[in-house]
Amino acid sequence: MKSCGIIVEYNPFHNGHQYHAKMAREMSGADVVIAVMSGNFLQRGEPAIIDKWTRAEEALKHGVDLVIELPFAYAVQSADYFAKGGIKLLQSMHCDSLCFGTDNQGDMSYEKFGSYVKEHQAEINQTYQKIKNNGMSYPQQMTEVFRQIYPETALDFSSPNHILGLSYAKENASYEKPMSLYPLKREQAGYHDLKIHKEFASATAIRKAVFSGALDQIKQVLPEEVVLDLVNTPKVSWEDYWLLLKYKLISSSIAELQEIYQMKEGIEYRLQEAAKTSETFLAFMEKAKTKRYTWTRLQRLATYILNNVKQEEVEKNWHHSHLQVLGFTDQGQRFLREKKKTIELPMITKVSKSVSTQLALDIRSNQIYQLGNETILEQSFGRFPIRLS
Amino acid sequence: MKSCGIIVEYNPFHNGHQYHAKMAREMSGADVVIAVMSGNFLQRGEPAIIDKWTRAEEALKHGVDLVIELPFAYAVQSADYFAKGGIKLLQSMHCDSLCFGTDNQGDMSYEKFGSYVKEHQAEINQTYQKIKNNGMSYPQQMTEVFRQIYPETALDFSSPNHILGLSYAKENASYEKPMSLYPLKREQAGYHDLKIHKEFASATAIRKAVFSGALDQIKQVLPEEVVLDLVNTPKVSWEDYWLLLKYKLISSSIAELQEIYQMKEGIEYRLQEAAKTSETFLAFMEKAKTKRYTWTRLQRLATYILNNVKQEEVEKNWHHSHLQVLGFTDQGQRFLREKKKTIELPMITKVSKSVSTQLALDIRSNQIYQLGNETILEQSFGRFPIRLS
Repeated sequence: MKSCGIIVEYNPFHNGHQYHAKMAREMSGADVVIAVMSGNFLQRGEPAIIDKWTRAEEALKHGVDLVIELPFAYAVQSADYFAKGGIKLLQSMHCDSLCFGTDNQGDMSYEKFGSYVKEHQAEINQTYQKIKNNGMSYPQQMTEVFRQIYPETALDFSSPNHILGLSYAKENASYEKPMSLYPLKREQAGYHDLKIHKEFASATAIRKAVFSGALDQIKQVLPEEVVLDLVNTPKVSWEDYWLLLKYKLISSSIAELQEIYQMKEGIEYRLQEAAKTSETFLAFMEKAKTKRYTWTRLQRLATYILNNVKQEEVEKNWHHSHLQVLGFTDQGQRFLREKKKTIELPMITKVSKSVSTQLALDIRSNQIYQLGNETILEQSFGRFPIRLS
Repeated sequence: MKSCGIIVEYNPFHNGHQYHAKMAREMSGADVVIAVMSGNFLQRGEPAIIDKWTRAEEALKHGVDLVIELPFAYAVQSADYFAKGGIKLLQSMHCDSLCFGTDNQGDMSYEKFGSYVKEHQAEINQTYQKIKNNGMSYPQQMTEVFRQIYPETALDFSSPNHILGLSYAKENASYEKPMSLYPLKREQAGYHDLKIHKEFASATAIRKAVFSGALDQIKQVLPEEVVLDLVNTPKVSWEDYWLLLKYKLISSSIAELQEIYQMKEGIEYRLQEAAKTSETFLAFMEKAKTKRYTWTRLQRLATYILNNVKQEEVEKNWHHSHLQVLGFTDQGQRFLREKKKTIELPMITKVSKSVSTQLALDIRSNQIYQLGNETILEQSFGRFPIRLS
């Protein structure tokens, strides 16, 4: 069976995502579309608006055959590590191709870029060493590196999907059998686009509409089931976790905060002070942010704090990955049966006591996610993959 | 000026407390009544129903001249350490006498008991060593010791005030100039009494009525101002901190929980498991309690967890005590002026940055207390002692 992977978050699932799944199948000619999806905490350091099981089901109803969870240690990360995780999981299943959205308006070949990076690693490192410690953030530094040595990337911070695409390309090229790449140009509704277009809108615009009670305005950009889910299932945002984050920052000693993953350069003092005097998560973020800490970096750090994530735990999770199956269609099940013996990572279809040590970070983050709304169902124990016939 | 100390919690302040202050003055013939009062977390491991500043003001309006805060490290403790703290603070002010309520119906002399303990310490230790490790809790063991060597104490677990009285007596006798002791017999409304009597009711009965919305039934047992405070100021109970405690228990590793003060014998596993499956604090307590862990001991442990209290921090606070003044009448102020030069502990009338390291545990617990209700005012910085003319 020919397979095409997509790496997604679905926060929430919308028409653009349905189009993506459809085009992945069409462009690659695949029999099965596999989504590697972030769980309940997302790449930009946010809780997912709807829980992972509900989002997986929505995806299965709209063009995806198999949903695998991207573990926390990869999901809540900058583009490079997020891509590392997504590609690793797809590669472990011997996926043939990868389809990803891009907002790059140029005509560069991601595959050529991937090969270039693989062959010129020394040169890239050299250039990086030269511009390091110039006060820029790591993504800014890498942008500068590629501007100098591979101008075709046309890196631009208003294009997060392009940056992700480049990360996928780099990571994919590092494998023995790279997947074929199918970049899908987004014609409208770019990442930061807040307008609601005819049939498409960005997930950001949709969340904004949902939380301002304007669900009516976005009905045309969402599948019907998603509209119902947005009405009937518990929805959360960072504000629902603000009291917990504030408590964690206030109750912890500075030494304890310093143990949190990515806590660096004394930012712990700043965060603790900001927490004491802020009434909302938004106010806290405004107070805490600095030139050096972008909003997203700070939000990811807030997610690590909320989930009490430590460096060694993240690294352990990188070395012991697994494939947690959230759901499948009949076609997805056929694929799993066919590949069962060759899949290179342990497959988890049921969270039991025996795998709970290995999954500790994911289980803990799911339990903390539940605290944001008391009606969120148990996310780990007793849950089975969703089957869609 | 002749002074009489009382060691109190006022959870909330009621007619019985007013009577206690009045009798303290009358029985001892004192010019000034000094209350050493727990702050926002109490001896039995509970958040105070109303904040410490409001409770201090109520006391000053009803017979108390000076309110000093009993620091967290002494306040949230079993009878022995609670008494140690209260007596230490009163002794540091060279207080002449101590008046305390007792529910003991016998005629024993607490002063005689104090002297006996001081003189027979070796014998007590010997008896204690003999019955140690028999599966009983520490208070049970000490009860047994005194039953054997000093039967007049007539120790009885339904008499927490008698147990406190014995602890005061022991501790007081260990000082060079012990205070004169004035036990005040409670004729009605014992500690565990849930009935509302004509003018008096226990604080437990009052809290129960407040939280069940039956404030009308208890108006006659409270001063008018307290009734108003119970209507108009934010009230909290353990349930208001349940989400935070649950989050703390779920998000911490076992190793982190083991660092909490008084976390022993593997109870951390039990508490973490109970937290995961409980929806309320009450349900959690029912699940977590064992024969070995009495309700109160478990509730105190919950308070240490909530406030992230460590062994070394408590011990540091024992060695560096201070007198935080919460309020005074004119008479109380005269007393402070007169004693200023001879008071043996640093006196704090304003929480500034310079004393914030020394007061870290108290400040932190106050900030956490505030998280239980968003309308609770700042408890430390910018607050000055209440002056009542």
